[in-house]
Amino acid sequence: MHETYDRPLPGALVASARLGIIGGGQLARLTALAALPLGCEVVVLERNPHSPGARLTPESVVGDWADPGVLARFAARVDVLTLENEFVPADLLRPLAAAGVPVFPTPASLALTQDKFIQKSTLAAAGLPVPEFCAVASPEEIAAAAGRFGWPVVLKSRCLGYDGKGNVTLRSADEIAAGWRKLGGGSNPLLVEAYWPFEHELAVIVTRGRTGEEAVYPVVETIQRHHICHEVWAPAELAHGVAEQAASLARRAVAAVGGIGSFGVEIFLGAAGRLAINELAPRVHNSGHYTIEACECSQFENHARAVLGWPLGSPRLVRPAAAMVNLIGERFGPGWAAGLPGALAVPGAHVHLYGKAMSGPGRKLGHVTVLADTATAARQAARSAARSLSFGGSSS
Amino acid sequence: MHETYDRPLPGALVASARLGIIGGGQLARLTALAALPLGCEVVVLERNPHSPGARLTPESVVGDWADPGVLARFAARVDVLTLENEFVPADLLRPLAAAGVPVFPTPASLALTQDKFIQKSTLAAAGLPVPEFCAVASPEEIAAAAGRFGWPVVLKSRCLGYDGKGNVTLRSADEIAAGWRKLGGGSNPLLVEAYWPFEHELAVIVTRGRTGEEAVYPVVETIQRHHICHEVWAPAELAHGVAEQAASLARRAVAAVGGIGSFGVEIFLGAAGRLAINELAPRVHNSGHYTIEACECSQFENHARAVLGWPLGSPRLVRPAAAMVNLIGERFGPGWAAGLPGALAVPGAHVHLYGKAMSGPGRKLGHVTVLADTATAARQAARSAARSLSFGGSSS
Repeated sequence: MHETYDRPLPGALVASARLGIIGGGQLARLTALAALPLGCEVVVLERNPHSPGARLTPESVVGDWADPGVLARFAARVDVLTLENEFVPADLLRPLAAAGVPVFPTPASLALTQDKFIQKSTLAAAGLPVPEFCAVASPEEIAAAAGRFGWPVVLKSRCLGYDGKGNVTLRSADEIAAGWRKLGGGSNPLLVEAYWPFEHELAVIVTRGRTGEEAVYPVVETIQRHHICHEVWAPAELAHGVAEQAASLARRAVAAVGGIGSFGVEIFLGAAGRLAINELAPRVHNSGHYTIEACECSQFENHARAVLGWPLGSPRLVRPAAAMVNLIGERFGPGWAAGLPGALAVPGAHVHLYGKAMSGPGRKLGHVTVLADTATAARQAARSAARSLSFGGSSS
Repeated sequence: MHETYDRPLPGALVASARLGIIGGGQLARLTALAALPLGCEVVVLERNPHSPGARLTPESVVGDWADPGVLARFAARVDVLTLENEFVPADLLRPLAAAGVPVFPTPASLALTQDKFIQKSTLAAAGLPVPEFCAVASPEEIAAAAGRFGWPVVLKSRCLGYDGKGNVTLRSADEIAAGWRKLGGGSNPLLVEAYWPFEHELAVIVTRGRTGEEAVYPVVETIQRHHICHEVWAPAELAHGVAEQAASLARRAVAAVGGIGSFGVEIFLGAAGRLAINELAPRVHNSGHYTIEACECSQFENHARAVLGWPLGSPRLVRPAAAMVNLIGERFGPGWAAGLPGALAVPGAHVHLYGKAMSGPGRKLGHVTVLADTATAARQAARSAARSLSFGGSSS
């Protein structure tokens, strides 16, 4: 692990702004691709020297953001700091913000979102619908919570979970001990949620600017498999009034945590149009990748605009329907894609490959978006292009 | 001047393909921004270490492409070589192509286009309409040509001209001597063209793939000032049948030189729908910048697809009208843009800043594209956003 500060930073002379992104994964990469055309110098701080984000800027910094010294020196090189994941502890960022570094989302927003118990408490306090939940400090408290909520319940790590990691569904008291062990109960803070009987999963990207202005993207439906997002359909096909309600919940949720930047809000849709907020991510979000082609201004460009204090662009769809299909690794091996020509031969297929060095089961390695006049046409084409692609060294 | 080969090239392990671009200006940058999402590793060869293209890839090579050794070592690092300008002599590239390096456009195509006399001879031989022209080796031959063509005539440098540099309009025999001196007659090969009485200037981007498949973009109107493109209107508003004829000329012109990749074809439109080919550029072209947002697949992505041997995307417009306004420097000074928030506040404005270190009179520093339902709305908004921006250290 090392930092590289040996190259000059000409960006200071020519850039519209120097945008520092903590984390160098695909979300940093997609943000950089949107910020570069605006004349931004993008600098990524990442432990991995060949991260997807670092691979498209000469000014990346290799270092550990958990080291306050690394973070402070990184902050000194940029005009605004943002992040591509919700795992950077708010407490590490507070001293920077206190010293006058613009950090967006703010450490206060991060503190309200990165711990799921605090997040749900904040949303509930704002009058927003969330599944019943409580913090638990022992297996007995899980049993007590299940007694109140009814089985099944979902046991969750309060922090650091993603793509289903850090979640266990418990169907009966017999499963408590195994779940407690699996999630590190005792040393790792946990919460329990009532199982919420959703019929569909929706998501909304909300970009909120420094002075509270908002861009609210279309309500989409997300299709999950094994807790990983596989498809996004935009717009969601919903009964009258449901989209407006979901958009309103999303706006209120992001405002409740004082969010600045693009946020992803996951919403459950149950019977009779009932809605509950599942989760709020303080960052650009997989459910918004379709916005790169499908919306006038993408979640990524609007994130850059928001954190830099610039006016937001329109989130409206440019075509009636869009479908996004994730490219998920199935095995370990090289991260390059076999079958790209076949995918590009599908009319309208917009292929995004993240340039990850390695494939692995469940890794997000790219995505495909297709716009069309109908949802069916968009989905069929996006799936067809995605099926052409494989990772891990196959020769398909 | 130095080369930097001190960093590893992980792209070989994870990239869909390694695309080498000779030249690091805005055309390389815009091509890189389109090729990166396809998983390409983009490597730029450029003398200037902080070129617009090199500013968004960690793997740029600083060196002089006129040095055959530099070029050969650069070629060894990439899968396909392409170029962002027509000035790299075909003769420098022939040995690489002969040694098996895929170079597109091919040296043969470059040889047919980079010398304007050879280009016009090739187009004329293919039966395509061009203004009358002839090579001239003395002031007397200019006078003789003007005697045949009639005054005025246009005296041009056969090679290396762009944005009006290398062109002089001669209105009478009195102006021959000054024009001859200005363009270096005697040492610099020149040609003379008849002045062609155009009423509008059109342009067409044609992407031609390795096996001859084509994507023909909409015919656009270009608005030039002082021989520099200021605006592009897509699609051009033309009398019945003219667009089809212009597109056909463009296709035939690119085929006539065996073009592979995106080519820009400039076409004069005269009275009664008469057309003549003004010029062919063997590269992505300023008249096609609007395609980034306005077309399903941009000239840049299709250039990458073509030279890499991948299927082409559709060139069709996604909205009825688009307008592109260039951001042209007016004075010397820093290259960053003042007034960006004002430009971004214009609804629908897509702002592209090239990250050039320096502004200067006539330098292309960025562009703005707006899509709309009507041409008027697109132009007004694009001009409004462009007016907000200034370069060279103004504090507007």
